[in-house]
Amino acid sequence: MNSKSRPTIYLIPVPLSDTGTERVLPSYNLSVVKGLKYFIVENIRSARRFLKACDRSIDIDSLSFSELNGHTDPQSIPSLLKPAHEGHDIGIISEAGCPAIADPGADVVAVAQTHGYDVVPLVGPSSIIMGLMGSGFNGQSFAFNGYLPIDGGRRSAKLRELERKIMHDDQTQIFIETPYRNNKLIAELCKSLPRQMRLCVASDITGEKQSILTLTLSEWSKKKYDYDKIPAIFLLYK
Amino acid sequence: MNSKSRPTIYLIPVPLSDTGTERVLPSYNLSVVKGLKYFIVENIRSARRFLKACDRSIDIDSLSFSELNGHTDPQSIPSLLKPAHEGHDIGIISEAGCPAIADPGADVVAVAQTHGYDVVPLVGPSSIIMGLMGSGFNGQSFAFNGYLPIDGGRRSAKLRELERKIMHDDQTQIFIETPYRNNKLIAELCKSLPRQMRLCVASDITGEKQSILTLTLSEWSKKKYDYDKIPAIFLLYK
Repeated sequence: MNSKSRPTIYLIPVPLSDTGTERVLPSYNLSVVKGLKYFIVENIRSARRFLKACDRSIDIDSLSFSELNGHTDPQSIPSLLKPAHEGHDIGIISEAGCPAIADPGADVVAVAQTHGYDVVPLVGPSSIIMGLMGSGFNGQSFAFNGYLPIDGGRRSAKLRELERKIMHDDQTQIFIETPYRNNKLIAELCKSLPRQMRLCVASDITGEKQSILTLTLSEWSKKKYDYDKIPAIFLLYK
Repeated sequence: MNSKSRPTIYLIPVPLSDTGTERVLPSYNLSVVKGLKYFIVENIRSARRFLKACDRSIDIDSLSFSELNGHTDPQSIPSLLKPAHEGHDIGIISEAGCPAIADPGADVVAVAQTHGYDVVPLVGPSSIIMGLMGSGFNGQSFAFNGYLPIDGGRRSAKLRELERKIMHDDQTQIFIETPYRNNKLIAELCKSLPRQMRLCVASDITGEKQSILTLTLSEWSKKKYDYDKIPAIFLLYK
């Protein structure tokens, strides 16, 4: 990783759950991680823990970490790339899953692109893609919507929009919810959308209690379930 | 994989390029593959080649393969799950990347879900997610559109729709093209869309010549490039 003329920004996925890294990351990722000295991370403590889990022999104290998260001043983002300006490769690590997907990182990648740096994403677990694979829904056309709006009126309007995109555009609709509201969300979907519409709940992806279950909303409304406090992703399709 | 009461359908990603499996697949995937005897595959010859690349000691001739692709009669899809009805686990393997994402497999997963079988996606390379990670574009809201329509009028209408979803809904738009038309597509985007809009071309993902490049359409229109016959994915954002 030192023989190139341009610095490289590596996007380094981390596990979604407490499983070992060999369960969800290619061994190649470890060889990349071991060659890096500079990291931009969502949370320094989790990033250090991840690097130790990759390889106990990594000398964490010799590494340099900058934080990038909701508390970061947008104006300071370009300066996070200082090591790259000096010719060093940088690794970006988010709290869970793939950096820059439903997670910080995209802003700094956008700046790296304007400098002409190489940007190299590594393979890792994405709950969006794994949920979609397991759902049985349309994988030729799909949208990830992040969180639904909290405000009642905007939330209803968003659900109407998702319904239209499913029925009219044949597009799978994917979204997430704050985990302690998962049960409430499912009940709300059952009440607000056509009962023959299918909902897939993909929970604890790659974890011990992973479950990916597709049922019609009519079936969900009769089912006993408890997804509260379990990380989950929701997919809707006709 | 024999101690469970319900059969499991594994979705098994394969490399996108000629790189080794350890570059893009977790070692765990290999342990799953080695426990399976029944496979539903997009192409038998490629699936056999992939399994040999996973582990040369796998006795390919002892395995059972069913094909699922554009030539498969939709009515025959439920019968592909016959081994599961008899209590066996099944692996689904597509030609490249993640099964059921922009690839066959979703229909058979949908049937497996109605039988209550466990569906377990494994981690692997997705050009959609890796392109998005490397683009610097919005990863909180994005849509994959598959191929653009070929017919001129419908194609223009689709480009207008993508523009609206980018500008109005702040949603990254992702799509693919038949590789021999890649250059023509880039020229067309430069001509049809606002010149300050950004286009990311992510080509040969995970391969020797991987390139993920984000520029404004104005910059693309002045640039020399040749993506013809190279597998690529296209992302647009404001």
